[in-house]
Amino acid sequence: MASTEPSTAVDRAILDAARACVAEFGVRRTTLTEVARRAGVSRPTVYRRWTDTGSLVADLLVRELREIITAAIPEGGAARARLIGAIVGGGSMMRRNPLFAKIFRTDADVMLTYVFERLGRNQRALIALFAESIREGQRDGSIRDGEPEQLAAMLLLLAQSAVQSAGTVTDFLDSDQLDRELARAIDGYLAPVDQRKVL
Amino acid sequence: MASTEPSTAVDRAILDAARACVAEFGVRRTTLTEVARRAGVSRPTVYRRWTDTGSLVADLLVRELREIITAAIPEGGAARARLIGAIVGGGSMMRRNPLFAKIFRTDADVMLTYVFERLGRNQRALIALFAESIREGQRDGSIRDGEPEQLAAMLLLLAQSAVQSAGTVTDFLDSDQLDRELARAIDGYLAPVDQRKVL
Repeated sequence: MASTEPSTAVDRAILDAARACVAEFGVRRTTLTEVARRAGVSRPTVYRRWTDTGSLVADLLVRELREIITAAIPEGGAARARLIGAIVGGGSMMRRNPLFAKIFRTDADVMLTYVFERLGRNQRALIALFAESIREGQRDGSIRDGEPEQLAAMLLLLAQSAVQSAGTVTDFLDSDQLDRELARAIDGYLAPVDQRKVL
Repeated sequence: MASTEPSTAVDRAILDAARACVAEFGVRRTTLTEVARRAGVSRPTVYRRWTDTGSLVADLLVRELREIITAAIPEGGAARARLIGAIVGGGSMMRRNPLFAKIFRTDADVMLTYVFERLGRNQRALIALFAESIREGQRDGSIRDGEPEQLAAMLLLLAQSAVQSAGTVTDFLDSDQLDRELARAIDGYLAPVDQRKVL
């Protein structure tokens, strides 16, 4: 599916069915046949839009993350505070999201590529989104100088680790404590020297 | 091998042979037979000390990281600057280390557990080491207040991401730029409010 093409009711039904399958079975055990069955459409209808499970799941995760980010971005305030709110709030939603939770638990090997090798579509989209907020913050004076894409890439590494590895540090940081420390880390990284404060 | 037992010349020869094997073949294709051959000892000599490749490689990685950290910790200066130097320097050495580089490239799935599920021995050792430095920094006034283990766990997430995922963001951050941004992130996270500066 070209990402510029408006999604139809059928596309949405297929993505919704894929979401239910992945949340229940994980990525590897999701088949286009089962997705078609749950969406109430024929298999060719699915195959015409997505030729394999990989491309369908990729589009599903792009949609899922876009919804999370849209819900997480706070309204109003300076750009830095909004960006911190979006990353911490979005990260917290991702940790509790049934789709990402299932993938981290059951299909962590699917994520390997994007942890060790190269960026995926969602990660590139996040860097672009962070860089845009950083530019805005540099204009409104709430974010320090620096190449926006470089700061954005570092923020991605920070945020990604706090989401994917949250479960490894629960002996030290519960969910609220992790949110608080992540907010402090981002704030300390982005704040201009004269505006740093203890959150 | 009990970690309190002093390592003998034979232990060291076996660990050195294991290091050469893992750097050449990766973790999964390293066998105790080949390790014994390269160490010039009999297989029973290896088996008496390590019953399987997993426990041997685990001890090897503990030794490797300890050597890196020892080499990376700067002498003198306030605790915060030394901790930043140790993490950034140690992270940079890990990225260039033939053993860790091979594991990240060939056996990333071996690392999965420690990214998504639970901490390994090395990660717990790093948190303890960071927490000790943080306590020192809280005494000498170079590190802000906060529960040392919580700050240390957040630092681990930050540092680990910058090491394991460095290769994913090379379009945005080359090695020197990544070191610089990681130093800024750690400094911003740890500095007391009145001591924050742009590095």
